[in-house]
Amino acid sequence: MSLIVQKFGGTSVGSIERIEQVADKVARFKAEGHSIVVVVSAMSGETNRLIALAKEVQPRPVPREMDALVSTGEQVTSALLSMALSARGVKAKSYNGSQVRILTDATHTKARIREIDNERLQADLDQGFVLVVAGFQGVDENGNITTLGRGGSDTTAVALAAALKADECQIYTDVDGVYTTDPRVVDGARRLDRITFEEMLEMASMGSKVLQIRAVEFAGKYNVPLRVLHSFEEGPGTLITKEDKSQMETPTIAGIAFNRDEAKLTVLGVPDMPGVAHRILGPIGEANIEVDVIVQNIAEDNTTDFTFTVGRLDLDRAEEILQEVARELNAEEVRADSKIAKISVVGVGMRSHVGVASQMFAALAEVGINIQMITTSEIKISVIIEEKFLELAVRCLHSSFGLEKEPYDESTA
Amino acid sequence: MSLIVQKFGGTSVGSIERIEQVADKVARFKAEGHSIVVVVSAMSGETNRLIALAKEVQPRPVPREMDALVSTGEQVTSALLSMALSARGVKAKSYNGSQVRILTDATHTKARIREIDNERLQADLDQGFVLVVAGFQGVDENGNITTLGRGGSDTTAVALAAALKADECQIYTDVDGVYTTDPRVVDGARRLDRITFEEMLEMASMGSKVLQIRAVEFAGKYNVPLRVLHSFEEGPGTLITKEDKSQMETPTIAGIAFNRDEAKLTVLGVPDMPGVAHRILGPIGEANIEVDVIVQNIAEDNTTDFTFTVGRLDLDRAEEILQEVARELNAEEVRADSKIAKISVVGVGMRSHVGVASQMFAALAEVGINIQMITTSEIKISVIIEEKFLELAVRCLHSSFGLEKEPYDESTA
Repeated sequence: MSLIVQKFGGTSVGSIERIEQVADKVARFKAEGHSIVVVVSAMSGETNRLIALAKEVQPRPVPREMDALVSTGEQVTSALLSMALSARGVKAKSYNGSQVRILTDATHTKARIREIDNERLQADLDQGFVLVVAGFQGVDENGNITTLGRGGSDTTAVALAAALKADECQIYTDVDGVYTTDPRVVDGARRLDRITFEEMLEMASMGSKVLQIRAVEFAGKYNVPLRVLHSFEEGPGTLITKEDKSQMETPTIAGIAFNRDEAKLTVLGVPDMPGVAHRILGPIGEANIEVDVIVQNIAEDNTTDFTFTVGRLDLDRAEEILQEVARELNAEEVRADSKIAKISVVGVGMRSHVGVASQMFAALAEVGINIQMITTSEIKISVIIEEKFLELAVRCLHSSFGLEKEPYDESTA
Repeated sequence: MSLIVQKFGGTSVGSIERIEQVADKVARFKAEGHSIVVVVSAMSGETNRLIALAKEVQPRPVPREMDALVSTGEQVTSALLSMALSARGVKAKSYNGSQVRILTDATHTKARIREIDNERLQADLDQGFVLVVAGFQGVDENGNITTLGRGGSDTTAVALAAALKADECQIYTDVDGVYTTDPRVVDGARRLDRITFEEMLEMASMGSKVLQIRAVEFAGKYNVPLRVLHSFEEGPGTLITKEDKSQMETPTIAGIAFNRDEAKLTVLGVPDMPGVAHRILGPIGEANIEVDVIVQNIAEDNTTDFTFTVGRLDLDRAEEILQEVARELNAEEVRADSKIAKISVVGVGMRSHVGVASQMFAALAEVGINIQMITTSEIKISVIIEEKFLELAVRCLHSSFGLEKEPYDESTA
């Protein structure tokens, strides 16, 4: 008998019919003898309805009141699911964030969890109750309602799993697991049985929007086994855990992530002297523009070229700032390019396998794709290429690293 | 500078436009220098929407979960009104029942308030905040959300006024005060400037459904001056206070209440012996049927007739029970009559004025109305008459007691 935390998102509980289906599923798990904590989001559309009401009253609503308002959405779902379970003869109790008590800091609309009291929950679990916890919310030390920001329900689930030392935290969603890459781009994309927290972080941050990065970080930190599953289809999903060092054969590459939300900015002919990077990126940071890849190559003739990427929506603003900076620095020119894409191969296995980078570059060269920028980390190699080559690049890399095949087919072959 | 608690019901906050109007009103009071606590109901329709969702999931929802569910309605309004006040430059904070902390017993869906912590509220009031409290809800000592039952927001307002020692508790509603009788029945019905708690209780229980009986009882118990006002029209409303003994001239009669929701049952030829009343009413009480007027006259030939009234909806069930009882008692016959009405003249002044009863009976006799039953209390005389004479009776009594005239016109005349 194990303790499982199960999280159902907004579309999984988006109607009474869906709530009934979730209740059926939870009841089945309970009947198998597990202890269950369910974390729910607001019914899909509800949060947006509440936000729209708020904006009618106050265009930029007071964050404290916004939290009091939108947190009701999850409370409604938790009460309804608890009723649906009772209707099935399953003892259940709803909890909101303040009842649990999920103590957070006081940063309204994007609070961070500090501590979870698990005493009441544990007592109810011991009595055989299924607990249905309203996700996304907590309470600060002064009793003000807080919310955890976008995707906060995933974080609630992982935090509860950590606090209760759950055996597994299951995130139910509209996909049946984490894939080697986007199946809409590559037909042969394959569901992964396992992936490490680190790999998942790199995959998630690149746009495989299955899980919130923050929840994965949290799960990694507290070593909570996380499983991504489909809400209404059967299947094992993908288990996200720490690296299994006992496993002889680690697949080199877990998957290929990509992203077309970025744009590239280059300052050409920047004087090669200390402090230049800061003078360029300082004003960008002050304008609250996030920078991703940064590349500066060696200088020639005492000048260098400085290139970085920003979110595509920030491009115009960033370029404006950069024109000003370029004048001050006596740089030659500023070039902006929004037609780029970023592709990353991700895998903890590359730590012990040389040649991943060269295999990647060779595969791209073979189909004639030019690499504009390269950046690497311990478990990831990313390249920036022209956007129009994105699908071609993903497909050729997927095939080059043999991702369409089960890794153990390979090792036993 | 005084401390005022203001309560706005569901229709007063039924749309964003209405919430804006309420915010304007509250802001004006605040600008006059008052300290303000606002208690709000759910936006009209919202509670019913939530109940409907619950019933889809579970025909008879678990009361604990029902409370968790419906209490969100008031929380939404309190957050929105607080935002609307902020948008007007008025510092405001929303509170739900658990945040205040309105401690209740654990009787879900009809909890009773035990205690209110006013520490946090007082601290916020001292800092100049307008507090917007979600009505109708509290929390039990185990942190479970409770609700106070129908009209509970009135009770929340009065309880907060008592706890904070407010100067006045204002109940905003869709009428501009308490009337001498229903203006739809008597053209000359007049808004009362003042009425006592006791009179209001008698008026309210008879169907002047302006205020919840429970809230009036609470206000009387803690001597909280209560004022009924129109939400969106200016006017002094009606002040409900304890009897003002310093006032030389107390009007004899405050008003005329009536009720056509009752039905009459008579057991004829009941043996006149001890314990008969109990044997008749015991089974009625056990069936959870409320009994109002009870009349038993002196016996003739060792038998008596026993008559009482019940809610009209309970008539059939009560008659069935009574037939059984009548057989056991060897009574002659059971008669049921649903075509009755109850009319009451109410006024603390009748304590010191003899002749109110005879004036009432004379007035009814003059227009040929037969009285079926009579019952009296210290400040009320009620009669049961045939329903078809109701309007005529109310009009003739209203005129006979001179209620269309201001009481002080009379004393200065």
